Amino acid sequence: MYYLGIDLGGTNIAAGIVDEEMKLVHKASIPTEAKAGAESIVARMAEVARQAIEGCGITVDDIKSIGIGSPGAIDPEKGVVIYANNLGFSNTPLAEMLGSYFPGKAVYVENDANVAAWAEAKCGAAAGTENSVTITLGTGVGGGMIINGKLYSGFNHAGGELGHIVIREGGRPCTCGRKGCWEAYASVTGLIHTTKEHMKANPDTLMWKIAGSLEKVNGLTSFDAMRKGDAEAQKVVDEYLHSVATGLVDILNILQPEVLCIGGGISKEGDYLLKPVKAFAEKEMYSRFNMLKTDIRIAKLGNDAGIIGAALLGV
Amino acid sequence: MYYLGIDLGGTNIAAGIVDEEMKLVHKASIPTEAKAGAESIVARMAEVARQAIEGCGITVDDIKSIGIGSPGAIDPEKGVVIYANNLGFSNTPLAEMLGSYFPGKAVYVENDANVAAWAEAKCGAAAGTENSVTITLGTGVGGGMIINGKLYSGFNHAGGELGHIVIREGGRPCTCGRKGCWEAYASVTGLIHTTKEHMKANPDTLMWKIAGSLEKVNGLTSFDAMRKGDAEAQKVVDEYLHSVATGLVDILNILQPEVLCIGGGISKEGDYLLKPVKAFAEKEMYSRFNMLKTDIRIAKLGNDAGIIGAALLGV
Repeated sequence: MYYLGIDLGGTNIAAGIVDEEMKLVHKASIPTEAKAGAESIVARMAEVARQAIEGCGITVDDIKSIGIGSPGAIDPEKGVVIYANNLGFSNTPLAEMLGSYFPGKAVYVENDANVAAWAEAKCGAAAGTENSVTITLGTGVGGGMIINGKLYSGFNHAGGELGHIVIREGGRPCTCGRKGCWEAYASVTGLIHTTKEHMKANPDTLMWKIAGSLEKVNGLTSFDAMRKGDAEAQKVVDEYLHSVATGLVDILNILQPEVLCIGGGISKEGDYLLKPVKAFAEKEMYSRFNMLKTDIRIAKLGNDAGIIGAALLGV
Repeated sequence: MYYLGIDLGGTNIAAGIVDEEMKLVHKASIPTEAKAGAESIVARMAEVARQAIEGCGITVDDIKSIGIGSPGAIDPEKGVVIYANNLGFSNTPLAEMLGSYFPGKAVYVENDANVAAWAEAKCGAAAGTENSVTITLGTGVGGGMIINGKLYSGFNHAGGELGHIVIREGGRPCTCGRKGCWEAYASVTGLIHTTKEHMKANPDTLMWKIAGSLEKVNGLTSFDAMRKGDAEAQKVVDEYLHSVATGLVDILNILQPEVLCIGGGISKEGDYLLKPVKAFAEKEMYSRFNMLKTDIRIAKLGNDAGIIGAALLGV
C-alpha cells in the first residue's frame, strides 16, 4: 500500500506517493491558480494527485489514505480549512471536497508547518522520537510541535506559531501586528532587513559588491560576504544568529523536545548556522546542567517535507 | 478514600488531606530545616504527613496515595529529585525515601510549579479542560503545562520554564544567566526593579510616600500609588503589565491552551491585572480572528495549589 500526500501552496500544488517504508517514490506538481476559487483548486488537487498515482505506475486502489498540508488555520478533526487568506478559503471543507474525487478514501488535512514537523518526526531528522519541534526559517518563521507522539497545536488548532514570540519588546513591526517578533529577525526577510541596515551604515562592505544593489540583497548576501572575510557581514551574521538562537532557546526552555529540527532556506547554511546556535544554546538554555539535552539538528527532508508529512497523516 | 499531598518548600513543609471531591479538608505545616540534609527533611515530611492524617481524624489506611511537589528538576517516573539547590538534593530518591515511612503506599513526585498547574487543571480555574497553562507571578515566574490531559515538561522533565523566554534581547540580567527574560520584568522582583527605576527618576511620585524608602518597595507600591491617582505609578504599572502580557501572548501563540491561569502574589490584584492583560492579548494574539480563544483567568487555589496538586498526582 501507498500513501498520497498533497502540499497545497499559494503558487503550486505538489502531490507525491509515499511507500510503507515512508519513502517518497514519485511526485508531480501543478500551478494552484488560487484566484479561480476553492472548487477549481480542489479539482486541480485531484488532477495532480492522479498524475502522481499514474506516474508511479499504481492505481487509486493502491492508496491507503490521502493527506493534505494546507496554509492557514485548520480544523484537522473536521478536515476543514477555517481560513487561508492566500487561497481565499473560509470554512472550506477541504477533506470532504477532495474526498468526492476519491470515494471511500480517508482524507486528512493539517496545517503546512505542522505536516513538515510531522514528516521530520516520522522519517526525518527527528525520527524515532516522541517529542520534537521543527522550525522553518523561510520567508517567515514557522513551526510544528510533536508531543507524546502526536501533533499538538493547541485546543483550537491555532498554536505552534513559534515565529510570533516577542524577543525585542517594541522592536521591528511584524506581519502579525506585534512588534519585535522572532520572525521579524530570524526569518530570511528579517536577515535581509538586517543586511540592508548594515549596508546603509557601511558603504565599504563587500556586501554591496556581492548584492549589486539594496534591491538585490537576499538571504545569502551576508553569509557569502562573511565567508570572504568581510567584517561588516560577520556582524550581520552574528546579529542574525544571536536572534535565531534567542528564540530557539525560548522554545527549548518551554518545550524541551528530544530533537529540535531547523529547516527552511537558511538551514542550507548547515554548520555555519548549526554550530553557533548550538554553542549559544549550550550556554543559555535553562537545562544546560541537565544530563539529557535537546539535540538541535538541521531538518532532513527539505522541500519534500510538506508532501511526505501530508502523506503520513494517515499512518 | 483520601489523597495526601506534600508541598515541600525551602522554608516550610506543608501537608494536606484531599478528599475524593478534590477538596482540601485538613492541612498541617512544619519548618523544613533544609540544612539538616535529605534524611532529616524526609523524616520531617513523614512527621507533618502524620500530623495532617491525625488532625483530619483518619488513619494511614484511608490514604490512597501520596504526592510531593518539590522544587528543582524532577524525574517523576523514577520519583527522583535530580537536583534542588535550596534543599541540597542531588539525585535524591525522594519517593522511595518517603515511601519507607508509609509501606505499601504509592508515592509520586513532581516539580512544584507543575503540581500547582495540575491542581488548577483538576479542580481550580482550569477544571474541566484537557489543555491548560498556569503561570505564577511570584519572586520568579514559574509555569506548568497540561497537554491532552497530562502534565508535560519535555522529554527530560526540564521544560515548562515559562519565565525564561527572552522578551528584551540584551535586557536585564536574569537569575538563569540570560539577559532580558520575561521573569526579569514580570515577576514581583521585576516589578520592584521597575518601581525603583521610576522612583529614582521622579522624586515627587507618591510611591516614595507609600514605600517610605527604596529598600521598602514591594509588589504593592506601584499598584497602590496608581489607585491613589499617581501618574508615575501608572507608568510603572502600565510598563509592568505590558511585559506580563507580552510573555503571556508568546505562550498563547505557542500553546493555545483552553485556559491560561495566572497565579502568584500579583494575581491578588485581580481585575487590575486581568483586564489590561486580556485587552492586550485580544489585540496581539495570533489567533485573535479565531472563533475559539484561550480564556485567561486568575488562578483559584492560591497557596493551597501546591498541596492539592501534589495530592492529586495519584488521581
